Amino acid sequence: MAYETLTFDVDADGIALLTLNRPDALNSFTVTMARELEEVFTTDAMADEVRAVIVTGAGRAFCAGMDLSAEGNVFGLDESLHPTPEKLAEHLADPAKHPEYADGVRDTGGKVTLAIHALPKPVIAAVNGPAVGIGATMLCAMDARLASSKAKIGFVFGKLGIVPEACSSYFLPRVVGIPRALEWLYTAEILDPDQALDGGLVRSIHLPDELLPAAFELARKFTQNRSPVGTALVRQLITRNASARHPLEAHLTDSLAMFYASIGDGKEGVAAFLEKRNPEFTAKASEVPDVFLRSDLQR
Amino acid sequence: MAYETLTFDVDADGIALLTLNRPDALNSFTVTMARELEEVFTTDAMADEVRAVIVTGAGRAFCAGMDLSAEGNVFGLDESLHPTPEKLAEHLADPAKHPEYADGVRDTGGKVTLAIHALPKPVIAAVNGPAVGIGATMLCAMDARLASSKAKIGFVFGKLGIVPEACSSYFLPRVVGIPRALEWLYTAEILDPDQALDGGLVRSIHLPDELLPAAFELARKFTQNRSPVGTALVRQLITRNASARHPLEAHLTDSLAMFYASIGDGKEGVAAFLEKRNPEFTAKASEVPDVFLRSDLQR
Amino acid sequence: MAYETLTFDVDADGIALLTLNRPDALNSFTVTMARELEEVFTTDAMADEVRAVIVTGAGRAFCAGMDLSAEGNVFGLDESLHPTPEKLAEHLADPAKHPEYADGVRDTGGKVTLAIHALPKPVIAAVNGPAVGIGATMLCAMDARLASSKAKIGFVFGKLGIVPEACSSYFLPRVVGIPRALEWLYTAEILDPDQALDGGLVRSIHLPDELLPAAFELARKFTQNRSPVGTALVRQLITRNASARHPLEAHLTDSLAMFYASIGDGKEGVAAFLEKRNPEFTAKASEVPDVFLRSDLQR
Repeated sequence: MAYETLTFDVDADGIALLTLNRPDALNSFTVTMARELEEVFTTDAMADEVRAVIVTGAGRAFCAGMDLSAEGNVFGLDESLHPTPEKLAEHLADPAKHPEYADGVRDTGGKVTLAIHALPKPVIAAVNGPAVGIGATMLCAMDARLASSKAKIGFVFGKLGIVPEACSSYFLPRVVGIPRALEWLYTAEILDPDQALDGGLVRSIHLPDELLPAAFELARKFTQNRSPVGTALVRQLITRNASARHPLEAHLTDSLAMFYASIGDGKEGVAAFLEKRNPEFTAKASEVPDVFLRSDLQR
Repeated sequence: MAYETLTFDVDADGIALLTLNRPDALNSFTVTMARELEEVFTTDAMADEVRAVIVTGAGRAFCAGMDLSAEGNVFGLDESLHPTPEKLAEHLADPAKHPEYADGVRDTGGKVTLAIHALPKPVIAAVNGPAVGIGATMLCAMDARLASSKAKIGFVFGKLGIVPEACSSYFLPRVVGIPRALEWLYTAEILDPDQALDGGLVRSIHLPDELLPAAFELARKFTQNRSPVGTALVRQLITRNASARHPLEAHLTDSLAMFYASIGDGKEGVAAFLEKRNPEFTAKASEVPDVFLRSDLQR
Repeated sequence: MAYETLTFDVDADGIALLTLNRPDALNSFTVTMARELEEVFTTDAMADEVRAVIVTGAGRAFCAGMDLSAEGNVFGLDESLHPTPEKLAEHLADPAKHPEYADGVRDTGGKVTLAIHALPKPVIAAVNGPAVGIGATMLCAMDARLASSKAKIGFVFGKLGIVPEACSSYFLPRVVGIPRALEWLYTAEILDPDQALDGGLVRSIHLPDELLPAAFELARKFTQNRSPVGTALVRQLITRNASARHPLEAHLTDSLAMFYASIGDGKEGVAAFLEKRNPEFTAKASEVPDVFLRSDLQR
């Protein structure tokens, strides 16, 4: 698959490097980039040979936000519509209802982060430079964020009279807490790497030349000698049950996850442990069992 | 509107100062203060000229908790009732059901924090001195908390054989985490400012004379050159989607919020950005669109 | 009640010490230990004379994880079953449905942590040494965790091709946050006490000889001069409303909790406060009122 706005390369260890690739425009976000990101996360990144995905930016920026210099309606919405919560909920539960909402109402950044959320493998951000607007909010749906000492992160929506998107009202407070999320959004200030580290938005700061090597090293620690199905289940269990209403919901899902893992790669894992050797797992992430009840906007 | 127990003054920048004003009683909380706080947050503070609210206490205390020296039933409840969760839920969904629950069962502090939660603008606490019981729990529903070096904060309910109220079982663990919330409530200890800062309950500590100036400076950073509708939507999106069950719920609400912002103040915001000038936003917080599905105790 | 795998002793202050007691096997977890832990938390620990429970391990380990050297199916599951989320949910809501799931599908660790979660009194972990696998996940359902300087904590499931259990996908991210939970599970590394403290998993580190005295001191601070009903309600309100969808749910439950506390031990608490003496509470944890709506996997 060839893309206009990004590149996607997989190394011998199964670590994919997804590079936002509009360096002359500071990798600013366009409707095409949104469509291509949704596609790469739902196709190429789903291949079983891919064990983890690192996301970075070409040139000196990570992503400078939505390309506000685009022609016409920069947000790509259909202003003639008058959507309601009830009708959008119907559309999300059944996309055939109100099909005009797909491109005319739904936030493009949210389609991207929902695809990142659904990926059954780790996603690591290597924030090489400015990450602003959607460049900041998309980070929040990823599993770990490493920052270059040249990173600048800005939830700048307030300066533009718009709102945080890309499901960041879900992801951001879960990463940095509600008080910090509110303060960062109200002030719309640009955060330096130390502020992002102090707030828990990034896990570590690296010299620019050491950023990608550190991201690859972490990706290998996440995946080598690991069961792809075990890792896929961990990601689903944690990211979804962190929002469960009661531990019984987690008991339902982790009982099923443990059941299917234990009759699968778990047998090899236990045998390898007892024989003091590395395991050789054979299950595939594409075959991960479904352990969640689905309903009503996934509530 | 004149109040017995508080004052409410709005400055030229639209920053309101709400002062708990029973200094001779250390601003202790009474049924009258509860009713007046609910009223000021649902009327005066809702006016479009008000851009943010700072809450502080007159004299040397913030609020010394419920006035336990009050005549009769200090909690203001009707002991002859025998309420059940089912019947109270019916009343909350439709106040005409079991109307005797309104004053006889419902926690007065909770009515206040629900009004604070529903306000479409930032609320900042300037904790000038002792904040105990309801004086501590009401802080948790606000967006940012600044402490004087003379502040003392105590979730002291355990000493009295009662329980934390004012929806603090919802707000407190979201601000400081479950383990700290449990430990502070079990021990019922008085926290000094450093403990409150370490736990994330307050964002900063100030010399007594510098507390209110710092709160006003923060309020201006939160509001100047900001769209009141954008800010109102941010507050709703973050405080509610922090408790969403799935990012699809956030996608529903932030898609709608972005849609309405982008055909409103967002046009001016983008134009001002491209023209490198300050925006002149015209939308009003009182007209913020409803982007949430409502049902079943807002679940 | 006599147990094979643990001891349970209650001191004069009502502080129970639950000791995992298979020291020759590093207190590794077996199906018998799971059954006995579920039993001790639902019977002995429920007695009104017990005010708090401290959990520790005999010998040099806390709990070295599941005993993988056990004969036959180490996970105790029935591999002939093919459970679905829908059928397991039916069973959990009504155990008479699909009774074969009780022992053949349900995670044994989850039965233990659900019993810990339901206990109406504080549970404190004194992590005296290695706590691995279920030895680590069971900690997350407790209220406070103290670590010996010799503690080692490992969420090592990834090395075995299995998944975190014991409802830890619910509890772990609530204690340490989603990013850290994911990183600890993906890497499956053994954490030293400083890492556990930095991540918020443990509240304090102690010299080995000072660990149990510190745990007992904390347990006494949690319980002396406290109402057992007040404490029971605090534990339910915080641990459950931390996952509520809207503050109205907390308002429902804390209104009822305050109502019943205020016509119970609250009267004595207020009187003792006004008379400047220690309260003498008489309500019993076994009689704590039910303030939660129950339904649909407790959602």
